[in-house]
Amino acid sequence: MAGKPTLAVIGATGAVGAVMLQILSQHKDIWGDIRLVSSPRPAGRKLVVRGEVCEVIPLSEEALTGVDVALFLVPAEVSARWAPIAAAKGAVVVDSSAAFRLDADVPLVVPEVNPHAARIRPRGIVASPHDTTLALIPAIGALHAEFGLRELVVASYQAASGAGREAVSALRDQLSLVAGTELGTGPGDVRRAVGDRAEPFPAPLALNVVPWSGTLQDGGWSSEELGLRDETRKILGLPRLRVAATFVRVPVVTTHSLAVHARFENEVTVERAHEILATSPGVVLYDDPAAGDFPTPADVVGTDPTWVGRVRRSPDDPCALDLFVCGDNLRKGAALNSAQIAEAIAAELPF
Amino acid sequence: MAGKPTLAVIGATGAVGAVMLQILSQHKDIWGDIRLVSSPRPAGRKLVVRGEVCEVIPLSEEALTGVDVALFLVPAEVSARWAPIAAAKGAVVVDSSAAFRLDADVPLVVPEVNPHAARIRPRGIVASPHDTTLALIPAIGALHAEFGLRELVVASYQAASGAGREAVSALRDQLSLVAGTELGTGPGDVRRAVGDRAEPFPAPLALNVVPWSGTLQDGGWSSEELGLRDETRKILGLPRLRVAATFVRVPVVTTHSLAVHARFENEVTVERAHEILATSPGVVLYDDPAAGDFPTPADVVGTDPTWVGRVRRSPDDPCALDLFVCGDNLRKGAALNSAQIAEAIAAELPF
Ligand SMILES: NC(=O)c1ccc[n+]([C@@H]2O[C@H](COP(=O)([O-])OP(=O)(O)OC[C@H]3O[C@@H](n4cnc5c(N)ncnc54)[C@H](OP(=O)(O)O)[C@@H]3O)[C@@H](O)[C@H]2O)c1
Ligand SMILES: NC(=O)c1ccc[n+]([C@@H]2O[C@H](COP(=O)([O-])OP(=O)(O)OC[C@H]3O[C@@H](n4cnc5c(N)ncnc54)[C@H](OP(=O)(O)O)[C@@H]3O)[C@@H](O)[C@H]2O)c1
Repeated sequence: MAGKPTLAVIGATGAVGAVMLQILSQHKDIWGDIRLVSSPRPAGRKLVVRGEVCEVIPLSEEALTGVDVALFLVPAEVSARWAPIAAAKGAVVVDSSAAFRLDADVPLVVPEVNPHAARIRPRGIVASPHDTTLALIPAIGALHAEFGLRELVVASYQAASGAGREAVSALRDQLSLVAGTELGTGPGDVRRAVGDRAEPFPAPLALNVVPWSGTLQDGGWSSEELGLRDETRKILGLPRLRVAATFVRVPVVTTHSLAVHARFENEVTVERAHEILATSPGVVLYDDPAAGDFPTPADVVGTDPTWVGRVRRSPDDPCALDLFVCGDNLRKGAALNSAQIAEAIAAELPF
Repeated sequence: MAGKPTLAVIGATGAVGAVMLQILSQHKDIWGDIRLVSSPRPAGRKLVVRGEVCEVIPLSEEALTGVDVALFLVPAEVSARWAPIAAAKGAVVVDSSAAFRLDADVPLVVPEVNPHAARIRPRGIVASPHDTTLALIPAIGALHAEFGLRELVVASYQAASGAGREAVSALRDQLSLVAGTELGTGPGDVRRAVGDRAEPFPAPLALNVVPWSGTLQDGGWSSEELGLRDETRKILGLPRLRVAATFVRVPVVTTHSLAVHARFENEVTVERAHEILATSPGVVLYDDPAAGDFPTPADVVGTDPTWVGRVRRSPDDPCALDLFVCGDNLRKGAALNSAQIAEAIAAELPF
């Protein structure tokens, strides 16, 4: 065939969708038609991709007909229903939601770490990991290859946009309410000022941190905390890896950070860890506290790689490293990883 | 003697000092004279304590003469110089700075956990721990007594006021600069907008988190991260406790939070941990995520106890608990703990 593959972007109007359109405009243009798809709700929306204005069409069987690769950037329940339909119509689906990540017949792919997994896709679906997993894996996967990972203890500093575009508006609203005030010094004063504008967060996020995201699972764990464990095990092929995570939302717009304590089979040194991280694809080593060099979300947002700093050997355990990583949850954490998977798949399609 | 002990509050004009004056006005009034002391800089300041207006006097040998208990709420270098002078003049010093915390001849006291340590004070000085240590110890000390603590992995979410009153102004300024804007989406946009108003933080704090506080030590560790380890070991009498901490500043005014992974000698259960925490002095158990009950700084600020929630047994380790704790860094984290120590000392003075 002489043409180029047709791409459908389902969820083009969302937070991840917006970044996907940027990426499609910036990356090498390997696509034929690009269809922008969203919910049927506000009809007639137009968006720009590859410098051209495109009409957004509603999700339907027709919208998924004749598609070669379908990027699903929609809520999990929408993916659960529509991704199998797209696959049945012959598209390869790359899904960024939680719907299929732990399905044994769906590969979960981080191209820097397990690219070949994307080739075996019995359901015609490839899943992209959770944004928090994606902030972790490029760095920890590289260290695992050298030292042999045994255990992870992770605390997250998750940005608002990880919960979608409405969560960003909520944070910005809340910040406007508290800026220029003396709030944040008496019990509940921020909560009273913010009122029901806390939503979609379970507590105000401005001048606060909120130790909850996801749904409640057994033992008090959240679905997202357990998801980090299960996804990391699946991607690294370590079914018995110990993982304990505490997920906390912070008043940052975009870019998740993680404080990571990683215990390995073998002794580690900071020097060797630096060498590995400095040469790993998708990772930037930024670690010179004497010069003020450590990653922060404000510096990392809008960039592709995972940034790693504060690399330390644990004072009481020669096999453990502590580090701080930052990754843009909309780029590598969602749109970029899905685009990378889709591009690799397209390269193997018979065009 | 019929009188009451004379108290000096050195650093009455600071962030901790302001809360100390509230506490002295609210607690049982056991003091005779209360002297308010600060730097010599702006003379003639007046503050209210116990409902009365008091003149603030500059720190001098004279200001420390005839004092029974001296509360030092000043930078560590000021304590290092002046606390021994106060002690030589006969005062019992309670110091909230880092100057003496790890001195073998100075007890480091959390009244709920090691009250008797305050009685043996060869230098006439008792130290109060770092605010982060104080957020941790009431809860972890109680769990240690039951299960036997072996290892801690801690990630902090530290409030601006932990760095003093100027840090709070800086955060509020920065919030006013970013509120109502679309900042926080491009690399460095917040940094450019905030410019040198980032100070005293090493990076902007509004719409950001900053993985650094303290001074650089060997191996890339910060003084505060190692301080948590050394202070916890000293207070709990566990010289070989393993501790790995990552300290991160967040855009919260007051109240530090910690994500804690604690490994014990014995198997744990959430039920037993709940019983212990619910009955420990200085601790509030607030742990029902189904009802939205977990501590956040916005709800905890201005209260005395350490709040504990998100108590979970590690999915892969029956001897480990994960929890999230919040404590007001100016109250229990500084002024309240110092006041409690001072009150216990005063009760044993020959008045
Ligand atoms: N945000 C992140 O950092 C991140 C990271 C990794 C993975 N993810 C996952 O990516 C997905 C999208 O997240 P997001 O943050 O972009 O969410 P979002 O900002 O809320 O956007 C949701 C998108 O889904 C579309 N949509 C909603 N219901 C639909 C329906 N019934 N049929 C068709 N389209 C529908 C919306 O279209 P309308 O405009 O028509 O409503 C919008 O385009 C989610 O599964 C999320 O878990 C997100
Ligand atoms: N903030 C916390 O959460 C916290 C928690 C635990 C422990 N601490 C420790 O408590 C101490 C005070 O902290 P802070 O947060 O209250 O700091 P702060 O807000 O910066 O206040 C500093 C205080 O020290 C006084 N001071 C400074 N230089 C002095 C000098 N040369 N002589 C006499 N007084 C001097 C200041 O008086 P002027 O008004 O005259 O400048 C002011 O009262 C520090 O050692 C800190 O590490 C703080």
